Amino acid sequence: MTAHQRNLSASIDPVKLDRLAEVAIKVGLQLQPGQDLLLTAPSVAMPLVRRVVEHAYKAGAGIVTPFFSDEELTLARYRFANDASFDRAAGWLYEGMAKAFGANTARLAIVGDNPMLLSGEDPAKVARASKANSIAYQPALEKIVNFDTNWNIIAYPSASWAKQMFPDDAEDVAVAKLADAIFAASRVDQDGAVAAWDKHNARLRERTDWLNGQRFHALKYSGPGMDLTIGLADGHEWEGGASTAKNGIVCNANIPTEEVFTTPHCRRVSGHVVSSKPLSYQGTLIDNISVKFEEGRIVEAKASRGEEVLNKVLDTDEGARRLGEVALVPHSSPISKSGLLFFNTLFDENAASHIALGQCYSKCFVGGDKLTPQQIAEQGGNKSLIHIDWMIGSAHTDIDGIHADGRSVPVFRKGEWA
Amino acid sequence: MTAHQRNLSASIDPVKLDRLAEVAIKVGLQLQPGQDLLLTAPSVAMPLVRRVVEHAYKAGAGIVTPFFSDEELTLARYRFANDASFDRAAGWLYEGMAKAFGANTARLAIVGDNPMLLSGEDPAKVARASKANSIAYQPALEKIVNFDTNWNIIAYPSASWAKQMFPDDAEDVAVAKLADAIFAASRVDQDGAVAAWDKHNARLRERTDWLNGQRFHALKYSGPGMDLTIGLADGHEWEGGASTAKNGIVCNANIPTEEVFTTPHCRRVSGHVVSSKPLSYQGTLIDNISVKFEEGRIVEAKASRGEEVLNKVLDTDEGARRLGEVALVPHSSPISKSGLLFFNTLFDENAASHIALGQCYSKCFVGGDKLTPQQIAEQGGNKSLIHIDWMIGSAHTDIDGIHADGRSVPVFRKGEWA
Ligand SMILES: [Zn+2]
Ligand SMILES: [Zn+2]
Ligand SMILES: [Zn+2]
Ligand SMILES: [Zn+2]
Repeated sequence: MTAHQRNLSASIDPVKLDRLAEVAIKVGLQLQPGQDLLLTAPSVAMPLVRRVVEHAYKAGAGIVTPFFSDEELTLARYRFANDASFDRAAGWLYEGMAKAFGANTARLAIVGDNPMLLSGEDPAKVARASKANSIAYQPALEKIVNFDTNWNIIAYPSASWAKQMFPDDAEDVAVAKLADAIFAASRVDQDGAVAAWDKHNARLRERTDWLNGQRFHALKYSGPGMDLTIGLADGHEWEGGASTAKNGIVCNANIPTEEVFTTPHCRRVSGHVVSSKPLSYQGTLIDNISVKFEEGRIVEAKASRGEEVLNKVLDTDEGARRLGEVALVPHSSPISKSGLLFFNTLFDENAASHIALGQCYSKCFVGGDKLTPQQIAEQGGNKSLIHIDWMIGSAHTDIDGIHADGRSVPVFRKGEWA
Repeated sequence: MTAHQRNLSASIDPVKLDRLAEVAIKVGLQLQPGQDLLLTAPSVAMPLVRRVVEHAYKAGAGIVTPFFSDEELTLARYRFANDASFDRAAGWLYEGMAKAFGANTARLAIVGDNPMLLSGEDPAKVARASKANSIAYQPALEKIVNFDTNWNIIAYPSASWAKQMFPDDAEDVAVAKLADAIFAASRVDQDGAVAAWDKHNARLRERTDWLNGQRFHALKYSGPGMDLTIGLADGHEWEGGASTAKNGIVCNANIPTEEVFTTPHCRRVSGHVVSSKPLSYQGTLIDNISVKFEEGRIVEAKASRGEEVLNKVLDTDEGARRLGEVALVPHSSPISKSGLLFFNTLFDENAASHIALGQCYSKCFVGGDKLTPQQIAEQGGNKSLIHIDWMIGSAHTDIDGIHADGRSVPVFRKGEWA
């Protein structure tokens, strides 16, 4: 115990932090007067939470309900809890969240915990706790992935995350670097952030309009270590940037976002692919993933690091071995150009084209909000407790769009839009 | 913004803080292996929360779910929210809590927010927000006051609370003083805290055994400014210290606690009484309360300060003007001897004999856990959204127990057990 501790929030520009909060409320959520808001955040993100709550109430929020996680509390469970604890979850809380989302409550997630927090803990316990949580959270998560309500994720530059990314820097320097990277990627590093987001959303819209006009049957990936054909779901729709939730509110679910994405056909994926960046999954770094698909299913999976965790993830349920998302990101994206590995999907998935194991988004179907789960499954949509994005794109990736008649159209060449 | 901030937790003895956490889990809750725990705390109480969570998991907790309040977030609502916000509450969350308590989840409340936090805000908004919360929380609160599950309240010496109590001291000195006062009152200032609580519980038990043997029909209070007869409910039972919740677990709901208490008859209270200490109610100090009872009902209420808030409280519902608790505390209690006003009921009610407006405890009836709400009402138990204790005892208070046949037995003389 020391008598003084360094105030790390001094490393974070308060003007840009406030802009991030404003963008979360006005662009990310477009929070409506009278709308309630449920937010989750690491306890250390309190300076950002305070800015967000002020902007929320100024926008006319009904009631804002915050939940805080804390790294030490999370670790205390792994270090001291009975074995039986790892199959438990606070079901009553998750049920309540599902109810709230079903009643027009908006959802904001502030991420920032150390991505490697659980890397020293027993992987079996981590997997069990994660599965118990996933099962309990499933009804609430479905309302989020199906956009029943407007939602948004933003990031806070916590010290533990910053030290993970910049281990050789002093803590305050590391926090300042991460803060700058988050602010730049989130387009709040300059005045006029809301207008900048409008412009960015318009550019992404041009891409999705073109792709939706093409109606490709499949995408064919080629490049070093990659020979992969990803069938697209029947009636798939490309999404990117702003989208309209079922409650009628236009929101930007991810800040930052650079991707356009749609639903692959979960039974029409074949070939092999290796990851182009490490995947940070619940405290474990999974590196050099190499998988082989047959009829949509991963039949072989290897990794140079974290292979045990990868295989546990793939065994979560039947859908965990199939794809639920395919996303295109140019190699020249600002996050890719930063050269940083964030160990966090919100950022890293926007540095490269990627695919996701597990649950699909009903949003990524034409008229998706009117489709039954059965119709989605018939059209090729995947179902799973998990949704995990991992990066496959690089400066060497070529992608062709394949029409039903076999005609091929260049989509990406050497990692850029063709 | 400053580059350094004082680490106030350095003013708090970590050994005693850990002992308080241990006493909360082992004495306050007697948390059972496999039992879930829901805890609420101010965000600044994180150092205590971390100790509590460690002790909870060491005791075999299933899953611990913490909720944090934050003074700045609370104020943001009052300063920036639309008018309509003040009639809203997170109903889905409170419903979930009721469900959890009904499913054997234990409940720990850590208090410590600045008791005067809302004193500068619009009293009408404070009252509306409080009422909306009370209504939403009612199903959960009923399970707590009826001891469906084991619960406990402890306190953390936050800086804002400490500065309220010791305005002339530097912040770190104020925190150290409040910490010492909390640790002493909570009997964790010395080794063997769990054993000290066993002894204290046994002493309180002697008092309740004697009172339960007497079966008084009423208590008659006399002293300066006080001529009050409080009828006791039919089949009332005196409680104090440890009690057995309906889930079979013996818990100490309040730490500290010095009182023995029971249920008054809500239609048989008459006379007048003045408060002997100020009441801190949701950020307002209500001082020199003076009330007149007729047939159990407050027909006149005055206060030298906070009278508007007092009258708003009395208008909450029909039961808000009637008594739900009567409690005996000797003037020589350790908290009384400290001479401190804590502005917090958990402490101040243990400095003096008191009464409470509003909801009664079914626990304070013989066989109370088997009585229906209707039977409780018939026996004289009160029902209300509120339960507010305020102090009437002093060094000059005489109390006589009155038997049904009119026979009088001295209970207190000059503020001490007779
Ligand atoms: Zn994606
Ligand atoms: Zn994804
Ligand atoms: Zn009391
Ligand atoms: Zn009380």
